[in-house]
Amino acid sequence: MIAKEEIAEWLKGLQDRICASIEAVDGGGQFKEDLWERPGGGGGRTRVLKGKLIEKGGVNFSAVHGAMPEKIAASLGFTDTEFFATGVSIVMHPQSPMIPIIHMNVRYFETSAGKWWFGGGIDLTPIYVVEEDARFFHQTLASVCDKHEEAYYPWFKQWADDYFYVKHRKETRGIGGIFYDQLNDQEGSSQEELFEFMKDVGETFAPLYVELINRHKAEAYDERQKLWQKLRRGRYVEFNLVWDRGTRFGLDTNGRTESILMSLPPEANWEYNFEPEEDSPEAFTQSKLVKGIDWA
Amino acid sequence: MIAKEEIAEWLKGLQDRICASIEAVDGGGQFKEDLWERPGGGGGRTRVLKGKLIEKGGVNFSAVHGAMPEKIAASLGFTDTEFFATGVSIVMHPQSPMIPIIHMNVRYFETSAGKWWFGGGIDLTPIYVVEEDARFFHQTLASVCDKHEEAYYPWFKQWADDYFYVKHRKETRGIGGIFYDQLNDQEGSSQEELFEFMKDVGETFAPLYVELINRHKAEAYDERQKLWQKLRRGRYVEFNLVWDRGTRFGLDTNGRTESILMSLPPEANWEYNFEPEEDSPEAFTQSKLVKGIDWA
Repeated sequence: MIAKEEIAEWLKGLQDRICASIEAVDGGGQFKEDLWERPGGGGGRTRVLKGKLIEKGGVNFSAVHGAMPEKIAASLGFTDTEFFATGVSIVMHPQSPMIPIIHMNVRYFETSAGKWWFGGGIDLTPIYVVEEDARFFHQTLASVCDKHEEAYYPWFKQWADDYFYVKHRKETRGIGGIFYDQLNDQEGSSQEELFEFMKDVGETFAPLYVELINRHKAEAYDERQKLWQKLRRGRYVEFNLVWDRGTRFGLDTNGRTESILMSLPPEANWEYNFEPEEDSPEAFTQSKLVKGIDWA
Repeated sequence: MIAKEEIAEWLKGLQDRICASIEAVDGGGQFKEDLWERPGGGGGRTRVLKGKLIEKGGVNFSAVHGAMPEKIAASLGFTDTEFFATGVSIVMHPQSPMIPIIHMNVRYFETSAGKWWFGGGIDLTPIYVVEEDARFFHQTLASVCDKHEEAYYPWFKQWADDYFYVKHRKETRGIGGIFYDQLNDQEGSSQEELFEFMKDVGETFAPLYVELINRHKAEAYDERQKLWQKLRRGRYVEFNLVWDRGTRFGLDTNGRTESILMSLPPEANWEYNFEPEEDSPEAFTQSKLVKGIDWA
Protein backbone atom coordinates (compact mmCIF):
# COMPACT_ATOMS: atom_id res chain seq x y z
CA MET A 1 0.00 0.00 0.00
CA ILE A 2 1.32 3.42 -0.95
CA ALA A 3 1.56 5.83 1.96
CA LYS A 4 -0.86 8.73 1.63
CA GLU A 5 2.01 11.10 2.38
CA GLU A 6 3.77 9.89 -0.75
CA ILE A 7 0.73 10.74 -2.86
CA ALA A 8 0.46 14.18 -1.23
CA GLU A 9 4.16 14.83 -1.86
CA TRP A 10 3.81 13.86 -5.49
CA LEU A 11 0.83 16.23 -5.83
CA LYS A 12 2.86 19.10 -4.38
CA GLY A 13 5.49 18.48 -7.00
CA LEU A 14 2.79 18.41 -9.68
CA GLN A 15 1.55 21.78 -8.48
CA ASP A 16 5.10 23.17 -8.76
CA ARG A 17 5.60 21.82 -12.27
CA ILE A 18 2.24 23.07 -13.52
CA CYS A 19 2.75 26.54 -12.07
CA ALA A 20 6.17 26.74 -13.73
CA SER A 21 4.74 25.71 -17.12
CA ILE A 22 1.86 28.17 -16.90
CA GLU A 23 4.13 31.05 -15.86
CA ALA A 24 6.43 30.24 -18.76
CA VAL A 25 3.71 30.25 -21.40
CA ASP A 26 1.99 33.27 -19.87
CA GLY A 27 5.15 35.34 -20.00
CA GLY A 28 3.64 37.86 -17.59
CA GLY A 29 2.86 37.55 -13.91
CA GLN A 30 3.91 35.08 -11.27
CA PHE A 31 1.77 32.90 -9.04
CA LYS A 32 1.22 34.27 -5.56
CA GLU A 33 1.06 31.68 -2.85
CA ASP A 34 -1.13 31.49 0.25
CA LEU A 35 -0.48 28.80 2.79
CA TRP A 36 -3.48 27.94 4.90
CA GLU A 37 -4.39 25.55 7.66
CA ARG A 38 -7.63 23.72 8.16
CA PRO A 39 -8.93 24.06 11.73
CA GLY A 40 -9.80 20.33 11.87
CA GLY A 41 -6.43 19.16 10.47
CA GLY A 42 -4.16 19.66 7.47
CA GLY A 43 -4.13 22.58 5.08
CA GLY A 44 -3.08 23.71 1.67
CA ARG A 45 -1.09 25.80 -0.72
CA THR A 46 -3.25 28.05 -2.90
CA ARG A 47 -1.55 29.73 -5.84
CA VAL A 48 -3.17 32.40 -7.93
CA LEU A 49 -1.92 34.08 -11.09
CA LYS A 50 -2.92 37.41 -12.58
CA GLY A 51 -0.93 37.11 -15.75
CA LYS A 52 -0.68 38.47 -19.23
CA LEU A 53 -2.58 35.72 -21.03
CA ILE A 54 -4.18 34.21 -17.94
CA GLU A 55 -6.48 36.82 -16.46
CA LYS A 56 -7.12 34.69 -13.39
CA GLY A 57 -5.66 31.28 -12.78
CA GLY A 58 -5.66 29.16 -9.67
CA VAL A 59 -3.65 26.06 -8.83
CA ASN A 60 -4.56 24.71 -5.44
CA PHE A 61 -2.92 21.89 -3.50
CA SER A 62 -4.46 20.61 -0.29
CA ALA A 63 -4.02 17.72 2.09
CA VAL A 64 -6.58 17.69 4.84
CA HIS A 65 -7.48 15.15 7.48
CA GLY A 66 -9.30 14.72 10.74
CA ALA A 67 -12.52 13.43 12.21
CA MET A 68 -14.89 12.61 9.40
CA PRO A 69 -17.49 15.39 9.10
CA GLU A 70 -21.08 14.20 9.18
CA LYS A 71 -21.72 15.56 5.69
CA ILE A 72 -18.87 13.51 4.25
CA ALA A 73 -20.20 10.40 5.98
CA ALA A 74 -23.70 11.12 4.63
CA SER A 75 -22.43 11.66 1.09
CA LEU A 76 -20.45 8.42 1.19
CA GLY A 77 -23.22 6.35 2.72
CA PHE A 78 -20.97 5.12 5.51
CA THR A 79 -19.16 6.57 8.46
CA ASP A 80 -15.65 6.10 9.68
CA THR A 81 -13.61 7.77 12.38
CA GLU A 82 -10.98 9.60 10.35
CA PHE A 83 -10.50 10.73 6.77
CA PHE A 84 -7.61 12.00 4.69
CA ALA A 85 -8.01 13.82 1.38
CA THR A 86 -5.39 15.31 -0.89
CA GLY A 87 -5.58 16.79 -4.35
CA VAL A 88 -4.64 19.43 -6.87
CA SER A 89 -7.37 21.62 -8.40
CA ILE A 90 -6.89 24.01 -11.27
CA VAL A 91 -9.02 26.51 -13.15
CA MET A 92 -7.59 28.91 -15.74
CA HIS A 93 -9.54 31.91 -17.04
CA PRO A 94 -7.66 33.43 -19.96
CA GLN A 95 -7.98 37.08 -20.97
CA SER A 96 -8.67 36.21 -24.59
CA PRO A 97 -11.97 34.65 -25.63
CA MET A 98 -10.00 32.72 -28.24
CA ILE A 99 -8.27 30.66 -25.53
CA PRO A 100 -10.50 28.13 -23.73
CA ILE A 101 -11.10 27.94 -19.99
CA ILE A 102 -9.67 24.73 -18.54
CA HIS A 103 -10.18 22.80 -15.34
CA MET A 104 -8.31 19.90 -13.84
CA ASN A 105 -8.60 18.05 -10.58
CA VAL A 106 -6.81 14.96 -9.29
CA ARG A 107 -7.49 13.70 -5.79
CA TYR A 108 -7.01 10.81 -3.41
CA PHE A 109 -9.18 9.90 -0.43
CA GLU A 110 -8.54 7.48 2.41
CA THR A 111 -10.30 6.57 5.65
CA SER A 112 -8.89 5.20 8.87
CA ALA A 113 -10.64 1.87 8.26
CA GLY A 114 -8.51 1.40 5.14
CA LYS A 115 -10.95 2.41 2.44
CA TRP A 116 -9.35 4.48 -0.31
CA TRP A 117 -10.03 5.76 -3.81
CA PHE A 118 -8.90 8.12 -6.54
CA GLY A 119 -10.87 10.71 -8.44
CA GLY A 120 -10.17 13.37 -11.00
CA GLY A 121 -10.73 14.81 -14.40
CA ILE A 122 -9.88 17.42 -16.98
CA ASP A 123 -12.48 19.36 -18.93
CA LEU A 124 -12.33 22.16 -21.46
CA THR A 125 -14.68 25.13 -21.87
CA PRO A 126 -13.97 26.89 -25.14
CA ILE A 127 -15.66 30.25 -25.62
CA TYR A 128 -15.54 29.35 -29.32
CA VAL A 129 -15.53 25.67 -30.11
CA VAL A 130 -12.78 24.83 -32.61
CA GLU A 131 -13.28 21.29 -33.85
CA GLU A 132 -9.59 20.64 -34.42
CA ASP A 133 -8.82 21.67 -30.84
CA ALA A 134 -11.66 19.55 -29.52
CA ARG A 135 -10.33 16.50 -31.37
CA PHE A 136 -6.78 17.15 -30.18
CA PHE A 137 -7.98 17.61 -26.59
CA HIS A 138 -10.04 14.44 -26.52
CA GLN A 139 -7.49 12.38 -28.42
CA THR A 140 -4.82 13.39 -25.92
CA LEU A 141 -7.04 12.33 -23.03
CA ALA A 142 -7.99 9.12 -24.81
CA SER A 143 -4.37 8.12 -25.31
CA VAL A 144 -3.55 8.83 -21.66
CA CYS A 145 -6.48 6.64 -20.62
CA ASP A 146 -5.69 3.89 -23.14
CA LYS A 147 -2.21 3.47 -21.68
CA HIS A 148 -3.92 2.24 -18.51
CA GLU A 149 -7.25 0.67 -19.41
CA GLU A 150 -9.11 0.56 -22.68
CA ALA A 151 -12.40 0.97 -20.87
CA TYR A 152 -11.34 4.23 -19.21
CA TYR A 153 -11.71 6.80 -21.95
CA PRO A 154 -15.26 5.93 -23.10
CA TRP A 155 -16.33 5.46 -19.50
CA PHE A 156 -14.78 8.65 -18.14
CA LYS A 157 -15.71 10.69 -21.21
CA GLN A 158 -19.35 9.90 -20.65
CA TRP A 159 -18.96 10.54 -16.96
CA ALA A 160 -17.63 14.02 -17.80
CA ASP A 161 -20.54 14.67 -20.20
CA ASP A 162 -22.93 13.80 -17.38
CA TYR A 163 -21.04 15.59 -14.64
CA PHE A 164 -20.26 18.91 -16.35
CA TYR A 165 -23.86 19.46 -17.30
CA VAL A 166 -25.69 22.70 -16.58
CA LYS A 167 -29.06 21.09 -16.02
CA HIS A 168 -31.14 24.27 -15.83
CA ARG A 169 -29.66 25.44 -19.16
CA LYS A 170 -29.86 22.02 -20.79
CA GLU A 171 -26.30 22.43 -22.00
CA THR A 172 -22.88 21.06 -21.16
CA ARG A 173 -20.34 23.40 -19.55
CA GLY A 174 -18.01 22.98 -22.50
CA ILE A 175 -16.79 20.12 -24.64
CA GLY A 176 -16.27 17.84 -21.66
CA GLY A 177 -13.19 15.70 -21.21
CA ILE A 178 -12.79 12.98 -18.60
CA PHE A 179 -14.17 12.65 -15.09
CA TYR A 180 -13.88 9.76 -12.65
CA ASP A 181 -14.53 9.24 -8.97
CA GLN A 182 -14.17 6.62 -6.26
CA LEU A 183 -11.86 4.44 -8.35
CA ASN A 184 -10.42 1.66 -6.21
CA ASP A 185 -9.26 -1.92 -6.57
CA GLN A 186 -12.83 -3.16 -7.00
CA GLU A 187 -12.49 -1.97 -10.60
CA GLY A 188 -9.61 -4.41 -11.15
CA SER A 189 -6.68 -2.01 -10.83
CA SER A 190 -4.35 -1.90 -7.86
CA GLN A 191 -3.67 1.22 -5.81
CA GLU A 192 -0.26 1.43 -7.52
CA GLU A 193 -1.82 1.29 -10.97
CA LEU A 194 -4.40 3.93 -10.08
CA PHE A 195 -1.70 6.18 -8.68
CA GLU A 196 0.16 5.80 -11.98
CA PHE A 197 -3.02 6.79 -13.77
CA MET A 198 -3.38 9.87 -11.56
CA LYS A 199 0.21 10.78 -12.39
CA ASP A 200 -0.39 10.52 -16.11
CA VAL A 201 -3.57 12.59 -15.96
CA GLY A 202 -1.82 15.20 -13.84
CA GLU A 203 1.23 15.43 -16.08
CA THR A 204 -0.94 15.70 -19.18
CA PHE A 205 -2.46 18.97 -18.08
CA ALA A 206 0.40 21.41 -18.66
CA PRO A 207 1.54 20.36 -22.16
CA LEU A 208 -2.07 20.01 -23.27
CA TYR A 209 -3.06 23.48 -22.15
CA VAL A 210 0.19 25.10 -23.27
CA GLU A 211 -0.48 23.73 -26.75
CA LEU A 212 -4.00 25.18 -26.78
CA ILE A 213 -2.73 28.54 -25.56
CA ASN A 214 -0.02 28.63 -28.22
CA ARG A 215 -2.54 27.85 -30.93
CA HIS A 216 -4.63 30.91 -30.10
CA LYS A 217 -2.66 33.46 -28.16
CA ALA A 218 -1.84 35.61 -31.18
CA GLU A 219 -5.43 35.82 -32.43
CA ALA A 220 -7.17 39.19 -32.33
CA TYR A 221 -10.63 39.53 -30.84
CA ASP A 222 -13.28 42.21 -30.62
CA GLU A 223 -15.96 43.51 -28.25
CA ARG A 224 -18.57 41.05 -29.39
CA GLN A 225 -16.25 38.11 -28.71
CA LYS A 226 -15.36 39.54 -25.32
CA LEU A 227 -19.05 39.90 -24.43
CA TRP A 228 -19.72 36.30 -25.46
CA GLN A 229 -16.81 35.24 -23.26
CA LYS A 230 -18.33 37.03 -20.26
CA LEU A 231 -21.72 35.43 -20.90
CA ARG A 232 -20.10 32.00 -21.14
CA ARG A 233 -18.25 32.74 -17.93
CA GLY A 234 -21.64 33.45 -16.38
CA ARG A 235 -22.65 29.89 -17.24
CA TYR A 236 -19.39 28.69 -15.71
CA VAL A 237 -20.38 30.45 -12.47
CA GLU A 238 -23.83 28.88 -12.64
CA PHE A 239 -22.40 25.40 -13.04
CA ASN A 240 -19.87 25.81 -10.26
CA LEU A 241 -22.24 27.32 -7.71
CA VAL A 242 -25.37 25.35 -8.52
CA TRP A 243 -24.24 21.92 -9.70
CA ASP A 244 -20.58 21.25 -8.95
CA ARG A 245 -20.62 18.78 -6.06
CA GLY A 246 -17.05 19.60 -5.05
CA THR A 247 -17.77 23.31 -4.73
CA ARG A 248 -21.02 22.87 -2.86
CA PHE A 249 -19.51 20.27 -0.60
CA GLY A 250 -16.63 22.59 0.24
CA LEU A 251 -18.91 25.53 0.98
CA ASP A 252 -21.22 23.32 3.05
CA THR A 253 -18.42 21.89 5.16
CA ASN A 254 -16.62 25.13 6.00
CA GLY A 255 -13.85 24.65 3.47
CA ARG A 256 -11.56 27.59 2.72
CA THR A 257 -13.91 29.76 0.68
CA GLU A 258 -11.25 31.72 -1.20
CA SER A 259 -9.56 28.52 -2.36
CA ILE A 260 -12.82 26.90 -3.38
CA LEU A 261 -14.11 29.96 -5.24
CA MET A 262 -10.84 30.79 -6.98
CA SER A 263 -12.51 28.80 -9.78
CA LEU A 264 -14.85 31.73 -10.45
CA PRO A 265 -13.99 34.02 -13.37
CA PRO A 266 -12.56 37.52 -12.86
CA GLU A 267 -15.60 39.03 -14.57
CA ALA A 268 -18.88 37.53 -15.78
CA ASN A 269 -22.04 38.85 -17.39
CA TRP A 270 -25.70 37.94 -17.42
CA GLU A 271 -28.06 39.21 -20.06
CA TYR A 272 -31.73 38.34 -19.91
CA ASN A 273 -32.70 35.85 -22.61
CA PHE A 274 -29.55 36.29 -24.67
CA GLU A 275 -29.67 34.33 -27.94
CA PRO A 276 -26.70 34.13 -30.32
CA GLU A 277 -27.40 35.25 -33.87
CA GLU A 278 -28.31 32.50 -36.30
CA ASP A 279 -25.36 30.93 -38.12
CA SER A 280 -22.91 32.91 -35.99
CA PRO A 281 -19.79 31.38 -34.43
CA GLU A 282 -21.56 31.83 -31.09
CA ALA A 283 -24.52 29.78 -32.32
CA PHE A 284 -22.10 27.14 -33.60
CA THR A 285 -20.49 26.89 -30.17
CA GLN A 286 -23.90 26.70 -28.51
CA SER A 287 -24.84 23.81 -30.80
CA LYS A 288 -21.79 21.86 -29.60
CA LEU A 289 -22.66 22.17 -25.91
CA VAL A 290 -24.43 18.84 -25.86
CA LYS A 291 -23.65 15.41 -24.49
CA GLY A 292 -22.46 12.52 -26.55
CA ILE A 293 -20.29 14.11 -29.24
CA ASP A 294 -17.52 11.70 -30.20
CA TRP A 295 -14.62 14.17 -30.44
CA ALA A 296 -11.83 11.62 -30.27
CA MET B 1 -62.05 32.44 1.76
CA ILE B 2 -60.51 34.69 -0.88
CA ALA B 3 -60.34 33.08 -4.31
CA LYS B 4 -56.78 32.45 -5.41
CA GLU B 5 -57.62 34.12 -8.73
CA GLU B 6 -58.36 37.34 -6.88
CA ILE B 7 -54.93 37.28 -5.28
CA ALA B 8 -53.27 36.58 -8.64
CA GLU B 9 -55.20 39.44 -10.26
CA TRP B 10 -54.14 41.82 -7.53
CA LEU B 11 -50.51 40.76 -8.02
CA LYS B 12 -50.73 41.46 -11.74
CA GLY B 13 -51.93 44.95 -10.95
CA LEU B 14 -49.05 45.36 -8.49
CA GLN B 15 -46.62 44.37 -11.21
CA ASP B 16 -48.12 47.03 -13.49
CA ARG B 17 -47.93 49.75 -10.87
CA ILE B 18 -44.36 48.92 -9.88
CA CYS B 19 -43.16 48.83 -13.49
CA ALA B 20 -44.77 52.23 -14.12
CA SER B 21 -43.09 53.75 -11.05
CA ILE B 22 -39.69 52.34 -11.92
CA GLU B 23 -39.91 53.51 -15.54
CA ALA B 24 -40.89 56.98 -14.33
CA VAL B 25 -37.96 57.33 -11.94
CA ASP B 26 -35.53 55.73 -14.37
CA GLY B 27 -36.40 58.17 -17.12
CA GLY B 28 -34.75 55.91 -19.69
CA GLY B 29 -35.83 52.55 -21.03
CA GLN B 30 -39.08 50.65 -20.87
CA PHE B 31 -39.77 47.20 -19.53
CA LYS B 32 -39.92 44.47 -22.13
CA GLU B 33 -42.43 41.77 -21.48
CA ASP B 34 -42.21 38.02 -22.05
CA LEU B 35 -45.29 35.91 -21.56
CA TRP B 36 -44.54 32.29 -20.80
CA GLU B 37 -46.43 29.13 -20.02
CA ARG B 38 -45.50 26.41 -17.62
CA PRO B 39 -45.77 22.96 -19.21
CA GLY B 40 -47.49 21.55 -16.10
CA GLY B 41 -49.98 24.42 -15.78
CA GLY B 42 -50.11 28.21 -15.49
CA GLY B 43 -47.43 30.66 -16.54
CA GLY B 44 -46.13 34.14 -16.07
CA ARG B 45 -45.31 37.63 -17.21
CA THR B 46 -41.62 38.45 -17.00
CA ARG B 47 -40.65 42.09 -17.43
CA VAL B 48 -37.08 43.25 -17.79
CA LEU B 49 -35.70 46.78 -17.95
CA LYS B 50 -32.42 47.97 -19.36
CA GLY B 51 -32.75 51.57 -18.29
CA LYS B 52 -30.74 54.69 -17.64
CA LEU B 53 -30.40 54.34 -13.88
CA ILE B 54 -31.41 50.68 -13.67
CA GLU B 55 -28.80 48.68 -15.55
CA LYS B 56 -30.83 45.51 -15.23
CA GLY B 57 -34.17 45.24 -13.49
CA GLY B 58 -36.65 42.41 -13.45
CA VAL B 59 -40.26 42.36 -12.27
CA ASN B 60 -41.76 38.92 -12.61
CA PHE B 61 -45.35 37.84 -12.08
CA SER B 62 -46.31 34.19 -12.14
CA ALA B 63 -49.30 32.04 -11.31
CA VAL B 64 -48.60 28.35 -11.71
CA HIS B 65 -50.55 25.26 -10.76
CA GLY B 66 -50.79 21.57 -11.41
CA ALA B 67 -49.93 18.24 -9.90
CA MET B 68 -47.68 18.77 -6.91
CA PRO B 69 -44.08 17.99 -7.89
CA GLU B 70 -42.34 15.50 -5.64
CA LYS B 71 -39.72 18.07 -4.65
CA ILE B 72 -42.39 20.48 -3.43
CA ALA B 73 -44.01 17.70 -1.43
CA ALA B 74 -40.63 16.77 0.04
CA SER B 75 -39.82 20.37 0.96
CA LEU B 76 -43.19 20.82 2.64
CA GLY B 77 -43.13 17.55 4.51
CA PHE B 78 -46.54 16.53 3.15
CA THR B 79 -48.04 15.66 -0.17
CA ASP B 80 -51.24 16.76 -1.79
CA THR B 81 -52.67 16.28 -5.23
CA GLU B 82 -52.60 19.82 -6.62
CA PHE B 83 -50.87 23.08 -5.84
CA PHE B 84 -51.29 26.69 -6.87
CA ALA B 85 -48.63 29.36 -6.41
CA THR B 86 -48.66 33.00 -7.42
CA GLY B 87 -46.28 35.84 -6.71
CA VAL B 88 -44.36 38.89 -7.81
CA SER B 89 -40.55 38.86 -7.66
CA ILE B 90 -38.31 41.84 -8.21
CA VAL B 91 -34.59 42.51 -8.34
CA MET B 92 -33.11 45.85 -9.41
CA HIS B 93 -29.44 46.27 -10.30
CA PRO B 94 -28.69 49.99 -10.70
CA GLN B 95 -25.87 51.29 -12.85
CA SER B 96 -24.51 53.49 -10.09
CA PRO B 97 -22.77 51.95 -7.07
CA MET B 98 -24.29 54.76 -5.02
CA ILE B 99 -27.78 53.31 -5.49
CA PRO B 100 -28.48 50.06 -3.61
CA ILE B 101 -29.64 46.79 -5.13
CA ILE B 102 -33.14 45.90 -3.96
CA HIS B 103 -35.19 42.72 -3.92
CA MET B 104 -38.84 42.11 -3.19
CA ASN B 105 -41.02 39.04 -3.32
CA VAL B 106 -44.64 38.51 -2.30
CA ARG B 107 -46.28 35.16 -2.87
CA TYR B 108 -49.28 33.03 -2.07
CA PHE B 109 -49.48 29.24 -2.04
CA GLU B 110 -52.50 26.95 -1.88
CA THR B 111 -53.10 23.21 -2.15
CA SER B 112 -56.13 21.31 -3.30
CA ALA B 113 -56.72 20.04 0.25
CA GLY B 114 -57.29 23.61 1.37
CA LYS B 115 -53.90 24.43 2.92
CA TRP B 116 -52.69 27.93 2.13
CA TRP B 117 -50.10 30.47 3.21
CA PHE B 118 -48.42 33.74 2.35
CA GLY B 119 -44.72 34.52 2.08
CA GLY B 120 -42.61 37.46 1.09
CA GLY B 121 -40.03 40.03 1.94
CA ILE B 122 -38.03 43.07 0.93
CA ASP B 123 -34.30 43.39 1.45
CA LEU B 124 -31.73 46.00 0.54
CA THR B 125 -28.14 45.49 -0.63
CA PRO B 126 -26.30 48.79 -0.59
CA ILE B 127 -22.89 48.82 -2.26
CA TYR B 128 -22.09 51.55 0.25
CA VAL B 129 -24.02 51.40 3.49
CA VAL B 130 -25.47 54.83 4.36
CA GLU B 131 -26.80 54.77 7.90
CA GLU B 132 -29.53 57.31 7.25
CA ASP B 133 -30.83 55.23 4.34
CA ALA B 134 -30.67 52.05 6.39
CA ARG B 135 -32.71 53.68 9.15
CA PHE B 136 -35.25 55.04 6.68
CA PHE B 137 -35.52 51.65 4.95
CA HIS B 138 -36.05 49.70 8.16
CA GLN B 139 -38.34 52.29 9.73
CA THR B 140 -40.54 52.19 6.63
CA LEU B 141 -40.77 48.40 6.82
CA ALA B 142 -41.37 48.54 10.57
CA SER B 143 -44.29 50.91 10.18
CA VAL B 144 -45.84 48.75 7.45
CA CYS B 145 -45.54 45.73 9.74
CA ASP B 146 -46.79 47.57 12.82
CA LYS B 147 -50.03 48.48 11.06
CA HIS B 148 -50.81 44.77 11.05
CA GLU B 149 -49.11 43.10 13.99
CA GLU B 150 -46.62 44.48 16.47
CA ALA B 151 -44.79 41.17 16.50
CA TYR B 152 -44.18 41.20 12.75
CA TYR B 153 -41.30 43.61 12.33
CA PRO B 154 -38.92 42.16 14.96
CA TRP B 155 -39.87 38.64 13.90
CA PHE B 156 -39.52 39.19 10.14
CA LYS B 157 -36.46 41.41 10.49
CA GLN B 158 -34.61 38.60 12.24
CA TRP B 159 -35.93 36.12 9.71
CA ALA B 160 -34.41 38.30 6.96
CA ASP B 161 -31.07 38.51 8.82
CA ASP B 162 -31.03 34.72 8.97
CA TYR B 163 -32.31 34.12 5.44
CA PHE B 164 -30.17 36.60 3.50
CA TYR B 165 -26.97 35.24 4.95
CA VAL B 166 -24.02 34.23 2.80
CA LYS B 167 -22.88 31.43 5.07
CA HIS B 168 -19.58 30.66 3.33
CA ARG B 169 -18.60 34.36 3.56
CA LYS B 170 -19.90 34.78 7.09
CA GLU B 171 -21.66 37.98 6.01
CA THR B 172 -25.20 39.12 5.31
CA ARG B 173 -26.15 39.91 1.72
CA GLY B 174 -26.87 43.51 2.62
CA ILE B 175 -28.63 45.32 5.45
CA GLY B 176 -31.55 42.87 5.47
CA GLY B 177 -35.15 43.96 5.69
CA ILE B 178 -38.09 41.65 6.29
CA PHE B 179 -38.70 38.04 5.29
CA TYR B 180 -41.60 35.75 6.14
CA ASP B 181 -42.87 32.42 4.91
CA GLN B 182 -45.76 30.01 5.40
CA LEU B 183 -47.88 32.57 7.23
CA ASN B 184 -51.39 31.23 7.72
CA ASP B 185 -54.24 31.48 10.20
CA GLN B 186 -52.36 29.41 12.76
CA GLU B 187 -50.48 32.61 13.55
CA GLY B 188 -53.74 34.30 14.59
CA SER B 189 -54.45 36.31 11.44
CA SER B 190 -57.14 35.46 8.93
CA GLN B 191 -56.51 34.95 5.23
CA GLU B 192 -58.08 38.38 4.61
CA GLU B 193 -55.75 40.04 7.10
CA LEU B 194 -52.70 38.34 5.62
CA PHE B 195 -53.75 39.35 2.13
CA GLU B 196 -54.00 42.95 3.38
CA PHE B 197 -50.50 42.60 4.79
CA MET B 198 -49.23 41.30 1.42
CA LYS B 199 -50.85 44.31 -0.25
CA ASP B 200 -49.16 46.75 2.10
CA VAL B 201 -45.75 45.12 1.66
CA GLY B 202 -46.20 45.09 -2.10
CA GLU B 203 -47.31 48.72 -2.32
CA THR B 204 -44.44 49.84 -0.10
CA PHE B 205 -41.82 48.74 -2.58
CA ALA B 206 -42.10 51.42 -5.25
CA PRO B 207 -42.17 54.59 -3.11
CA LEU B 208 -39.45 53.17 -0.88
CA TYR B 209 -37.07 52.42 -3.73
CA VAL B 210 -37.92 55.58 -5.66
CA GLU B 211 -36.94 57.59 -2.57
CA LEU B 212 -33.61 55.76 -2.30
CA ILE B 213 -32.92 56.27 -6.01
CA ASN B 214 -33.70 59.97 -5.77
CA ARG B 215 -31.39 60.37 -2.81
CA HIS B 216 -28.40 59.08 -4.77
CA LYS B 217 -28.97 59.31 -8.50
CA ALA B 218 -27.05 62.57 -8.90
CA GLU B 219 -23.95 61.39 -7.05
CA ALA B 220 -20.74 60.95 -9.00
CA TYR B 221 -18.70 57.77 -8.68
CA ASP B 222 -15.32 56.52 -9.82
CA GLU B 223 -13.59 53.34 -11.00
CA ARG B 224 -12.85 52.12 -7.51
CA GLN B 225 -16.49 52.42 -6.51
CA LYS B 226 -17.56 50.64 -9.67
CA LEU B 227 -15.13 47.79 -8.96
CA TRP B 228 -16.46 47.46 -5.43
CA GLN B 229 -19.97 47.31 -6.86
CA LYS B 230 -18.98 44.45 -9.16
CA LEU B 231 -17.36 42.55 -6.31
CA ARG B 232 -20.48 43.03 -4.17
CA ARG B 233 -22.56 41.84 -7.10
CA GLY B 234 -20.37 38.72 -7.12
CA ARG B 235 -21.49 38.05 -3.56
CA TYR B 236 -25.08 38.61 -4.68
CA VAL B 237 -24.58 35.88 -7.29
CA GLU B 238 -23.07 33.60 -4.67
CA PHE B 239 -26.04 34.06 -2.35
CA ASN B 240 -28.61 33.54 -5.06
CA LEU B 241 -27.04 30.46 -6.61
CA VAL B 242 -25.76 28.76 -3.46
CA TRP B 243 -28.18 29.66 -0.67
CA ASP B 244 -31.41 31.18 -1.96
CA ARG B 245 -33.98 28.44 -1.53
CA GLY B 246 -36.36 29.99 -4.04
CA THR B 247 -33.73 30.07 -6.78
CA ARG B 248 -32.48 26.57 -6.15
CA PHE B 249 -35.96 25.23 -5.89
CA GLY B 250 -36.89 26.80 -9.21
CA LEU B 251 -33.80 25.44 -10.94
CA ASP B 252 -34.34 22.01 -9.43
CA THR B 253 -37.97 21.78 -10.50
CA ASN B 254 -37.57 22.90 -14.10
CA GLY B 255 -38.82 26.42 -13.52
CA ARG B 256 -38.33 28.98 -16.28
CA THR B 257 -34.58 29.57 -15.99
CA GLU B 258 -34.49 33.03 -17.56
CA SER B 259 -37.17 34.29 -15.18
CA ILE B 260 -35.50 32.77 -12.14
CA LEU B 261 -32.03 34.04 -13.05
CA MET B 262 -33.11 37.52 -14.06
CA SER B 263 -32.08 38.26 -10.46
CA LEU B 264 -28.42 37.94 -11.45
CA PRO B 265 -26.49 41.18 -12.06
CA PRO B 266 -25.54 42.36 -15.55
CA GLU B 267 -21.86 42.14 -14.67
CA ALA B 268 -20.04 40.78 -11.62
CA ASN B 269 -16.42 40.35 -10.58
CA TRP B 270 -14.43 37.97 -8.46
CA GLU B 271 -11.00 38.83 -7.17
CA TYR B 272 -9.05 36.29 -5.15
CA ASN B 273 -8.83 37.27 -1.48
CA PHE B 274 -9.95 40.86 -2.00
CA GLU B 275 -9.79 42.90 1.20
CA PRO B 276 -11.05 46.49 1.44
CA GLU B 277 -8.50 49.04 2.66
CA GLU B 278 -8.61 49.77 6.37
CA ASP B 279 -10.90 52.65 7.35
CA SER B 280 -12.23 52.91 3.80
CA PRO B 281 -15.93 53.30 2.96
CA GLU B 282 -15.73 49.75 1.60
CA ALA B 283 -14.45 48.47 4.95
CA PHE B 284 -17.23 50.40 6.69
CA THR B 285 -19.82 48.68 4.51
CA GLN B 286 -18.21 45.31 5.13
CA SER B 287 -18.42 45.91 8.89
CA LYS B 288 -22.19 46.43 8.58
CA LEU B 289 -22.83 43.13 6.81
CA VAL B 290 -23.65 41.34 10.03
CA LYS B 291 -26.80 40.05 11.64
CA GLY B 292 -28.61 41.78 14.46
CA ILE B 293 -28.09 45.49 13.76
CA ASP B 294 -31.10 47.42 15.02
CA TRP B 295 -31.51 49.87 12.14
CA ALA B 296 -35.08 50.91 12.93
